Parts: sequence; C-alpha cells; structure tokens
Amino acid sequence: MKLYYCETLSPRKACAVARHLGSPVEFVRVDLPHGEHRQAPFLAINPNGRVPVLQDGDWSLWEANAIMCHLSDLAGADLWPHDRRQIEVMRWLSWDSQHFTRHTGTLWFEHVVKPHIGMGEPDEATVAAALAETRRSARLLDDHLDGRSHVVGDSLSIADFALASALPDARAARIPLDDYPNIRRWHDRLNEFEAWRQPFPARPPAVAA
Amino acid sequence: MKLYYCETLSPRKACAVARHLGSPVEFVRVDLPHGEHRQAPFLAINPNGRVPVLQDGDWSLWEANAIMCHLSDLAGADLWPHDRRQIEVMRWLSWDSQHFTRHTGTLWFEHVVKPHIGMGEPDEATVAAALAETRRSARLLDDHLDGRSHVVGDSLSIADFALASALPDARAARIPLDDYPNIRRWHDRLNEFEAWRQPFPARPPAVAA
Repeated sequence: MKLYYCETLSPRKACAVARHLGSPVEFVRVDLPHGEHRQAPFLAINPNGRVPVLQDGDWSLWEANAIMCHLSDLAGADLWPHDRRQIEVMRWLSWDSQHFTRHTGTLWFEHVVKPHIGMGEPDEATVAAALAETRRSARLLDDHLDGRSHVVGDSLSIADFALASALPDARAARIPLDDYPNIRRWHDRLNEFEAWRQPFPARPPAVAA
Repeated sequence: MKLYYCETLSPRKACAVARHLGSPVEFVRVDLPHGEHRQAPFLAINPNGRVPVLQDGDWSLWEANAIMCHLSDLAGADLWPHDRRQIEVMRWLSWDSQHFTRHTGTLWFEHVVKPHIGMGEPDEATVAAALAETRRSARLLDDHLDGRSHVVGDSLSIADFALASALPDARAARIPLDDYPNIRRWHDRLNEFEAWRQPFPARPPAVAA
C-alpha cells in the first residue's frame, strides 16, 4: 500500500496512525507547493486533489478519517472501535470537522502556510473570526477533557489524532492553548507517542543551487 | 428518546433517518429564530448549541452523523453498515462535511436563511466562492454517481442522506443541479421515500396576532 502525504494537517493524522500501528505502507510525498496534486496522475487516484490518499492496488481511499479507520481495521486495532465507543468517536470526528480543526486549521493556514508559500499577510477578518470560533470550541473541548485521559473512553482512538491535528504547530499558528489546561495536558500525553511527534518521513536536505 | 430538531440542514438528515427507520423518538422542535439553542436548558444537553440532539435518558448525543449511525444500529438496520462498506460510508461522510454540503449549505444559508430571518442580502463574494466550490464538488459527485444507484454499494446508506442535505431546497438555494444529471437522478430516487420528502413533523398553523 502507498500512503500519499505532504506535511499538512490531514495527512498528519493518517501518517501518525500508520506509524503508530506499524502499518505496511510506503510513504509517498506529494509536492503540493509545485501543484503535483492538481496534475493528472494524482487526480487519477484522488479526483478531489487532496492528500492523504491510501492506494491499495486499484483501490484508492481518500479522506484522512476513512484512512485512519481502515488502517485500524487492517491492524486489528481498536483506534477505530467496533463497540459502543464507535458512536462517540463518530460524534467527535464530526464535531472536529465542523468546528475544532476547521477553525484551528484556518489559524494554521493564515499564520503558517501563507507566509511559507509567499501568499502574503494573514487576512485580519479571517483570523479574528477563526480565533473567536477556536476559543468557543476549545472551551467545549477543554470542559470535555476535564478528568479524562482521552477524548473517548480511557484509551487512544482516532478521535484523539483528529482533534489534535493542528496542535503541534499551535505556537506558530497562534492557537491560544495556554488558556485551556485540559487540552494542553491531553496533547502532552499524545506527544509521548513518537508517531505523533514525528508522523512524516524525514526529508533529505535541500541541495544548494 | 427525544430528537431535538429545527427545519435546517443537519436535523433534516437525522429526522429523515428516524422516520425512515420508524425510530421510537419524540420529535422536539427547538426555536432557533428566538435563540432557544443559546439558552441554558438547551446548552445543558448540547454545549455546542446546535440541533439535532438525540437525548436518551442522561445521555445526549449531538452531531447528526453520529445520530444517524446510532439510530441505524438501534434498529438493526444497515444504513450505517458494519461490513466493508463502512469505510466507504466514512469516506463520503467526511468528504461531504469538508466539501459538498459545506458549500451547498453556504448557498442555502445565503439564499434561503438570510432572507427568511431578515439578515439582509446574500454576500456576493461568499456566494461566488461557494458556487465555484459547489460546482467543483458536484462534478466529482456526479462522476461518482454515473452508473450507480446509491453513493455506496447498491443500497441506501447514511451517506446518501448526508450528501443530499441541501438538495431539497436546491432551487431556492440556487444550487445548479441541472448541470449534474446523475445527481438529479440519484436525488429523485431519494425523493421516492416519504421520510426524505417530509422529514419534519407538521407545524401547526401560526395563530394570527
């Protein structure tokens, strides 16, 4: 199997799960800055033109949440549980997609991606709106994590990986984690996993021109 | 069980599934225009302040996708399948949340909700961006539905309900369905279900002041 990725938010969760589980995948980097994801060979495996994609023979699976589920199932793991926790994991995946990482991801894009690819200054109105929504949803998540070790039950699930997507870059993305001690504690715990700290393959040093 | 709803996009899919399955729920309307969802009694059952919510004793389940899964499981149905189709349903739920209904939902909000609640004219830049993204994602969905009766496999799943969320109001929302014949044909089939055409309880006529 090949796991197509770049060092961005959605691939992070899929790559971290693959590394955490020791999934038998070959990591294939897609050159987003040069538009490889908009070219025909890549669109043939994901017509949506995004990473990550898991390719298994003729079958291409895109959408990181689905890839995490599939890798967990293949490994016989319970990161994607098949008992009553499953509904709770679905709740948090859905809420994350609609709220938490939607807004933390916007802060990440404005403060981290734009400067990196020369798209100019962050848009003030976009940042203000995303920051307000990030605070609203971080308050909810912080309350939920009060007294809990994990988002669902007392063990790691793909909901933890999904919700944490933007947090490794919290400082650069100006995500105000300091105000949410339960989120910090929970993310510190996730950072104990090397798979979360280092989800991507090392890149060879750039060759001087 | 109580299913809290209003006549908006996310409750539509949860209510339609409840009606389709004959789930034993009491429908409880939440008065969004008067801000009932921002008041303490409702926030106690959903701190996220949104509908739908399924309340079962002390357990409040929010997020429509999770509610659909749970209602299917309770009914022993396979709208949320537990075989190899599950990963495909997850793929389409995720893509819908990130792309299709995100953008069709924006068109619906700008063209249907704003005039209805006196929020003024649609924002031109927002509409233009949402329309472009709707066209991009509708092209992908239309291609996927070519030769298919349903989004996943050959039977109804919660992915069909989710992706169709905004389509009953396509004309008013100015979602350009006419350009996507496979989507139209698929949605016509969904409309054969009374549960999809009429997902919400009838409302009593307004009393004249």
